[in-house]
Amino acid sequence: VNDRARLTEIVGPANVLADDDMTAGYRQDWTGRFLGPSTVVVRPGTTDEAAAVIKACAETSTPVVPQGGNTGLVGGSVPLSGEVVLSLTRLNRIEPVDAAGGQVTADAGAAIAAVQHAAAQAGWAYGVDLASRDSATVGGTIATNAGGLRVLRYGDTRAQLVGIEAVLANGDIVTSLPALFRNNTGYHLPSLLCGSEGTLAVITKARLRLVPPAPHKSAALLRFATTDDAAAAAGQLRRGLASLAAVEFFLQAGLDLVCETFALAHPFAAATEGAYLLVEAASDRDPIEHLAAAVNALDGVADVAVATDSHTRAALWRYRELHTESINHVGPPHKLDVAVPVAALAELVARVPGVVHAIAPTAKTWLFGHAADGNVHINVTGLDPDDDRVDDAVFRLVADLGGSISAEHGIGTAKRRWLPLARTPAEIAAFRALKRAFDPAGILNPHVLLPDERR
Amino acid sequence: VNDRARLTEIVGPANVLADDDMTAGYRQDWTGRFLGPSTVVVRPGTTDEAAAVIKACAETSTPVVPQGGNTGLVGGSVPLSGEVVLSLTRLNRIEPVDAAGGQVTADAGAAIAAVQHAAAQAGWAYGVDLASRDSATVGGTIATNAGGLRVLRYGDTRAQLVGIEAVLANGDIVTSLPALFRNNTGYHLPSLLCGSEGTLAVITKARLRLVPPAPHKSAALLRFATTDDAAAAAGQLRRGLASLAAVEFFLQAGLDLVCETFALAHPFAAATEGAYLLVEAASDRDPIEHLAAAVNALDGVADVAVATDSHTRAALWRYRELHTESINHVGPPHKLDVAVPVAALAELVARVPGVVHAIAPTAKTWLFGHAADGNVHINVTGLDPDDDRVDDAVFRLVADLGGSISAEHGIGTAKRRWLPLARTPAEIAAFRALKRAFDPAGILNPHVLLPDERR
Repeated sequence: VNDRARLTEIVGPANVLADDDMTAGYRQDWTGRFLGPSTVVVRPGTTDEAAAVIKACAETSTPVVPQGGNTGLVGGSVPLSGEVVLSLTRLNRIEPVDAAGGQVTADAGAAIAAVQHAAAQAGWAYGVDLASRDSATVGGTIATNAGGLRVLRYGDTRAQLVGIEAVLANGDIVTSLPALFRNNTGYHLPSLLCGSEGTLAVITKARLRLVPPAPHKSAALLRFATTDDAAAAAGQLRRGLASLAAVEFFLQAGLDLVCETFALAHPFAAATEGAYLLVEAASDRDPIEHLAAAVNALDGVADVAVATDSHTRAALWRYRELHTESINHVGPPHKLDVAVPVAALAELVARVPGVVHAIAPTAKTWLFGHAADGNVHINVTGLDPDDDRVDDAVFRLVADLGGSISAEHGIGTAKRRWLPLARTPAEIAAFRALKRAFDPAGILNPHVLLPDERR
Repeated sequence: VNDRARLTEIVGPANVLADDDMTAGYRQDWTGRFLGPSTVVVRPGTTDEAAAVIKACAETSTPVVPQGGNTGLVGGSVPLSGEVVLSLTRLNRIEPVDAAGGQVTADAGAAIAAVQHAAAQAGWAYGVDLASRDSATVGGTIATNAGGLRVLRYGDTRAQLVGIEAVLANGDIVTSLPALFRNNTGYHLPSLLCGSEGTLAVITKARLRLVPPAPHKSAALLRFATTDDAAAAAGQLRRGLASLAAVEFFLQAGLDLVCETFALAHPFAAATEGAYLLVEAASDRDPIEHLAAAVNALDGVADVAVATDSHTRAALWRYRELHTESINHVGPPHKLDVAVPVAALAELVARVPGVVHAIAPTAKTWLFGHAADGNVHINVTGLDPDDDRVDDAVFRLVADLGGSISAEHGIGTAKRRWLPLARTPAEIAAFRALKRAFDPAGILNPHVLLPDERR
C-alpha cells in the first residue's frame, strides 16, 4: 500500500490500476493459458517516470514484470506471482524518420504496425513483420528478439537494433540512440538486452535501422504431397533465389481449419492432403519470372497458385497468418515454438503427432512455421493448461534432433524448466552471472527465463 | 618461468615462442604503430589446449592478449604491457559446409578468405568481406565485430553469428554451435562477445550463417565535383536501389596515391579533383539496367565508369581497396575509423583536414570509407606515433557531429581514453559490471576497450 501511494505520486492516479477488472487484460496472456493473481499495473508516460517506478520498486525489493503489447506466447509478460506490471504502452511516440540515414527512433510501446507505417511514409520499410503487428510493440519484440515473416531477408529484431534506451534495475537510465549505421564502441548492450525478456533492464526506446522497400513482390502457394519434398524445396529456394523474402509452411489440417474458421475458399479445391509452402520474392523488378523458374526446378510440387498483384498476395498470406487465431478458436493451445536443423524438419513434422498422441490421445496437433529457417510452431489443443507432459516429450524430441526449444518466442515462464535441454551448465552459469551483474536483487521479471536455482 | 614450463607442457615446446625475433610479428601491429616488449607467445592447437592455457594464466594472474590474424588497427591484439599472447592461428579448421541449412562452423583462426572459399564451393557465400580477408580471422573479426564492404547488404559480423564456442576467464568452455537459424533460449552470448575485443572471453569457434550468392553483379565508379553531392547520392542510392551491395567512397588525393603507388592508370584521365563513389549492385539478374537508371537519377555526377564483367569490376575495386596499403607506404598512419550520421558526412570530410592542419601543419590526411553508412576511415600520416593531439581533436569533432569514435575497428588500446566521448557514465558503469562478471581478475586483454578506473 505504501508502494501504491508512491507509484501514484510518480505516474498519477489514472495510471495505477489495481481493480481486478481493470487489470484483467494485463494479468492474462493472449492465449488465455497464463493468468496472474490480483496485482497493481503501473503505466508510466515517460522514460523518467518508468525509471522512478523501477527505483521505487528496487527500494522495496518489489518484483516487476515489464509488459508491451502482451502478445507474448510463453508467459513472459504476465505477473504470474503477483509482480507489479510495468506497462509501457503509453510510451508510444515515434520520432520523425531519418530519411537520409534510413533509421527511426521509437518508444518501447509503439506498435510494430505504427513503425512500419512511419517508415513507409518516408520511403523506407521496417525489416520486422509478424502477424501480431497491430499489438506487438517495439519493446516487446526487442525483449523477445522477435523473428516473424521476414527473418530470411532482413534478420531478426536484434539485427535491426542500432541503439537502445533502457532503465536498469537500480533506476539508472542507459541511453544510446545515435543516428549511426556503424558504431563499435564497447559491449553491445542493445544486442544483450534483445532477447533478455525483461530480466536485465526495461527497454524504453530504440533506434531501429530501416530497409529499402522492395517495390516489386510476387508470391506463390505450393502444395507438395509430402513434407519431405516441401522441406527440401525450402532449402533449395533459400540457396537458389537471391530475391527470396519468405518461405512459410503449413499442413492440410491447418489449412482446413483456417478455411473453416474464416469461411475462406480452399486454394486448391480438390486437394485433401499435403504440405504447403508460401513463397514470396521481393526485388527492384518484378521477381515473378525468377520465382517461377525457381519453382519449376523444385521436385514434388503438386499444385501452384501464383499471386502477382497485392490483393491476391494478401489472400495467399491469409491462409498462413490466420493459423494462430484459428487454432485459438479451438481452445487455448500449448504453443511449442521450436527450431530444428533444416535437414531434420521433415522428421520433426512426421514424429510430433505420434509423440503427442502417445501422451494425450484426444489432443490435436497443429504445425506451421517458417520452413527455410527450420522453425516450427507446434500448437497442441485439448490439453490441460498445467499438464506439461506433452511439452516435455516434444522438447526432448527436438533436443534429440539437435534443435532449440525456443526458435523465436523466448523462454518466458512456460519453458524455463527446460532451459537445461537447450544450454550447457557453463552457459547457464554465464547467464546467471549476467543476471547478477544487471539485477543483483532479482526484481526484474524474476520468474522468467532462468530456472530457479537449486539450493 | 614457471608459467613457461607449464605452458610448454600444454601446447608443446614448438608452440611456446619467447625469442624476440620469433615473437616480433606477434608483438607489433600491422600498421607498425603499436609494438609490445619481449613476451611469450602461446599457440594452442585445440580448444582444450586454449582452455588449459587460460586456466594456467588465471591461476597465476597472468594477463593474456588473444590474437587472430593481427590485422587489427587499434592496438587491441598486441601485448603492449608484456601480456602473454594467445595466438589462435593454429585453430584454423573449417567444418564441411551445411549446404541444406546454409551455415558453416569454423575455428577462430580460420581466415575470412578461407571461409568465403568454403562457402562458395558449397554454393553459398559468406556475408562479410574486407580488404584484409586473407589474414583476418573468424575470431578476430568477431572480437571486433568487423564490418567491411558488404555491411550495407548483409549486416556486420554480429549479424552472421549463429553460435559460438569460447573459453571463459576461468578456463571453462562455453559451447553453443547449433545448426539453427533461429534460437532464442537465453542471453545471446555470441552477440555480447562479438565486439568485446577479447576482454570477456577467448573465442575459439563460431557457427556462421551463409547467404545465397548473388550471381549477377555490376559496379560503377562515379566522380562528383563535390563531397556534398557524393554524400547525397550515397543516401539516395541506399533508399532507391534494393539490389545495392556497396557504396564506397574516396577522394582525389587517395586515388592519386593509389595510382602512383601501384602504377595504375587513372579511371578518368583528365580529372584532377573530385569525390568518388564506387557503387555495386548484386541480384538474381544482371542489375546493370537498374544501376544505370539509379545513377542517371543522381545529381552532380561528373564522370562514370561502368563495369559489367568481373575483370573490370575487380579493376574498379582496386582503386578503393589499395588505399590502406598505399597509405602505409607513406608511413605509419594514425587510423581514425569514425562514423557520423549520413547527413553530416560531407561536413566531416570538409572539416577534418583543417582540424589536422591546425595541429600538425606537415601531416597529410587521407579520407575514404563506406559512404552509405557514414563510415569514414580518417588516416593521418606524418605524425609521431605517440602524439595523439590530432586524434583528440578529430574525435571531438566527430562527437560534436553526433558521431562515433569507432565505426568498425573497435576501441583497442588506441582509443580507450576517448571512450567517455562515445558512452555515458551509466553505460560505462554497465560495461564495467559486464567485465567484472566475466573476468573478475581482469586477465583478459586488461588494457583494451575500458579506460583505467580512477582510484
